[in-house]
Amino acid sequence: MSARRSMLLTISAGTDAFVDALARASRRGEADFSKAEPVVREILDHVRHEGDATVLHYIEKFERRAPRSLLLRDYGGAEALARLPAEARNALEYAAARIRRFHEHERQAMFGATFLLDGKTSVQGFHYEEGGIGLGLRVRPLRRVGVYAPGGKARYPSSVLMSAIPAQVAGVDEIVLATPLAGDATDDAVLAAAHLAGVTAILDAGGAQAIAALAYGTKTVAQVDKIVGPGNAYVACAKRLVYGAVSIDSIAGPSEILVVADETADPAVVAADLLSQAEHDEDAYCFLVTNRADLLEAVQRELATQLESLPRAAIAREALKHHGQAFLVADRKAMAETADMIAAEHLSLQVDAPETLLVSIRNAGAAFVGRLTPEAAGDYVAGPSHVLPTGGVVRFGSPLGVHDFVARTSLIRYSADALRGEERTICALARLEGLEAHARAVSVRCVVPRSGADKPPARD
Amino acid sequence: MSARRSMLLTISAGTDAFVDALARASRRGEADFSKAEPVVREILDHVRHEGDATVLHYIEKFERRAPRSLLLRDYGGAEALARLPAEARNALEYAAARIRRFHEHERQAMFGATFLLDGKTSVQGFHYEEGGIGLGLRVRPLRRVGVYAPGGKARYPSSVLMSAIPAQVAGVDEIVLATPLAGDATDDAVLAAAHLAGVTAILDAGGAQAIAALAYGTKTVAQVDKIVGPGNAYVACAKRLVYGAVSIDSIAGPSEILVVADETADPAVVAADLLSQAEHDEDAYCFLVTNRADLLEAVQRELATQLESLPRAAIAREALKHHGQAFLVADRKAMAETADMIAAEHLSLQVDAPETLLVSIRNAGAAFVGRLTPEAAGDYVAGPSHVLPTGGVVRFGSPLGVHDFVARTSLIRYSADALRGEERTICALARLEGLEAHARAVSVRCVVPRSGADKPPARD
Repeated sequence: MSARRSMLLTISAGTDAFVDALARASRRGEADFSKAEPVVREILDHVRHEGDATVLHYIEKFERRAPRSLLLRDYGGAEALARLPAEARNALEYAAARIRRFHEHERQAMFGATFLLDGKTSVQGFHYEEGGIGLGLRVRPLRRVGVYAPGGKARYPSSVLMSAIPAQVAGVDEIVLATPLAGDATDDAVLAAAHLAGVTAILDAGGAQAIAALAYGTKTVAQVDKIVGPGNAYVACAKRLVYGAVSIDSIAGPSEILVVADETADPAVVAADLLSQAEHDEDAYCFLVTNRADLLEAVQRELATQLESLPRAAIAREALKHHGQAFLVADRKAMAETADMIAAEHLSLQVDAPETLLVSIRNAGAAFVGRLTPEAAGDYVAGPSHVLPTGGVVRFGSPLGVHDFVARTSLIRYSADALRGEERTICALARLEGLEAHARAVSVRCVVPRSGADKPPARD
Repeated sequence: MSARRSMLLTISAGTDAFVDALARASRRGEADFSKAEPVVREILDHVRHEGDATVLHYIEKFERRAPRSLLLRDYGGAEALARLPAEARNALEYAAARIRRFHEHERQAMFGATFLLDGKTSVQGFHYEEGGIGLGLRVRPLRRVGVYAPGGKARYPSSVLMSAIPAQVAGVDEIVLATPLAGDATDDAVLAAAHLAGVTAILDAGGAQAIAALAYGTKTVAQVDKIVGPGNAYVACAKRLVYGAVSIDSIAGPSEILVVADETADPAVVAADLLSQAEHDEDAYCFLVTNRADLLEAVQRELATQLESLPRAAIAREALKHHGQAFLVADRKAMAETADMIAAEHLSLQVDAPETLLVSIRNAGAAFVGRLTPEAAGDYVAGPSHVLPTGGVVRFGSPLGVHDFVARTSLIRYSADALRGEERTICALARLEGLEAHARAVSVRCVVPRSGADKPPARD
């Protein structure tokens, strides 16, 4: 190892430092909202009770601008797309088509078959009958969702595609994109992406005030059912606080990559992947897990070399300094175990037989399989959404997808005979729990129907 | 309408009262945790930093008992099941089998096909290749979940089955049931249900202290990935506060039923269903939506009559007084719209052609289709979990199911040719967003490989 400060802090297995570092890495998702929370609570409260005027007030206060109108239904997306340089336009269209195709696959593969709910209306889910009991699940798109996209330096048209297209494919009626517009030509890429992604209206606001308007509704902005998309600490805090009034995707923390590399990896490629994460922001996490000290040393050298010509070198350098760590372990088994514990947003497998290693790594947001697959391809064009859980949330969280924009309804239908057959069992359970009215609600249906206008004969 | 106070408050469409009542009903989910929150925050904080001893301290303080041991791995479930009276044992076994079967259907229908991740290990999800790019989603069970079940008067073995069986079917490794045991024979039904549902250990604790132990882990209790199941206001508040450290299901509020009934409904049956909800607790919601004033009047009379002999009449009467409402509307269309706005946990359709009506009702947790289908059947044996979103959360929430106990990982694999084919597009998008290192991470892979030990030839 070089005597100069290495780019990645090396931590070798079998030491106390290794155990400590892994434990710290596992706790990286613990967000501290103590600074943001009082401010955000006040904003949420004001917007909730005072509506549009307050949203405009906060936009003026925090964004130092006064939008002509808060909600834009005709936002000129098609025109913005046409104004883009051909290369950017083609690239956005290509990406949108690929993202849409992947999420169509998700919808078709993962929401069950279609069945006829009433003999003629086709819905997705599943349905079966056994012994006179019809059972099923109906998948239903959410009515209205809000997609948040930051302004300023983190203004990524790709995130608009990656957040809104899954909602569109799910069949959501209204997709509102909340993003602070600049009011000039720099808006074009974002407006074009919104157009390609089927965004139905733009809420020209950012920050907690945008989240508040979406979560509670105002005169201008209808309340949504779910808010997705990454934002800064104030946005993340606001999403956490409105959770319950609306659904949210997971709270986004700094972006992360974990590269698992063995002797078949190319140090230049590994370094390039780590830097593509590091350039995002000063808090990005860059993890390397390897069984090869020589590879690690070569990666350190490559990082130094490649940093020299990187436009965002200052940001990347800070990220590596704060959260650049290399875990040096003995073998493939330890590589898989370490990766599983870190539970990274992006998992890059630059090893021999990467799929075999992946079998034993449960926790990953997106897996980039093999050394030819750059994480950057997933950021833009591969297809799966690049909106992924961070901070170890992949233990229980999933990539944003069509799944996020639907809910399910259980379907239950009994025939008279089926209910009679189960009467005794249901009543036994109800009485075991002391719920007599439950038992009677079954038995009242099992008596022979009386005659009379309000007692039609039992039908199945 | 009778001059005596009716059982259900009648609200007729076309009045200001109707608009107000619907708006109030839509806001019923707004939980006020202001009383519970300071207490719960303190408990969470203490348990997080001081572990087991604090959990035991709070059990002694709030539950006035000292469990012999906090975590029971050998909890004697099989023995408890054998000790139950035959009728209860058979009923629990019957219910467990039906619940398991429904969730097996869910898993098979909704998680995609199986495919071979590495040529020999079968996983669920989907996978396809186009133009040298392999894409997919892998469904992976969560490792460890906590299932909460209240003690005391709301001690329902059925809820243990309904919460834990979906986790078991999903393939979760460890299912920890948190519930305060009584330490006597009354535990048997709960222990038996735990056994039938594949619970791997019991945390003998309730309240916020149990949620804290599951969410943060202690020396005795391993941290879980998700906590599900209903509880009182302290439990609900604790779940809300630990959200982020772990996943949770939706925050349970008071139970709800909405009966939609027309002239084909039987007033005795409608009343019995409303009472089966009302007997749960004083805050339960009982909504009736109908187009028939005569039916409504008959239901009111039936409620009064049936209440006379109900063991839990006092509770049911309070529930009807607080939250018993009948919405009288003009026609089927208005019935569907009103039901959709209320977005009830349980939707009972006691109308002609109930499926046709259901087509236009998006928002329902579980739909009980037709007047022969009692909600109580869904509570115990039908199959779908009775753990459902309340308080209007069905707008964006779903029944508890196998879905709650899995996460997904995106799979992306590029061939050399595929990456070369997309290099220009990816680089254009990366540079549009000012992320040069992203572009370079693609291009570094597209150069002709150099020779040398650490530069193996490109492989697909």
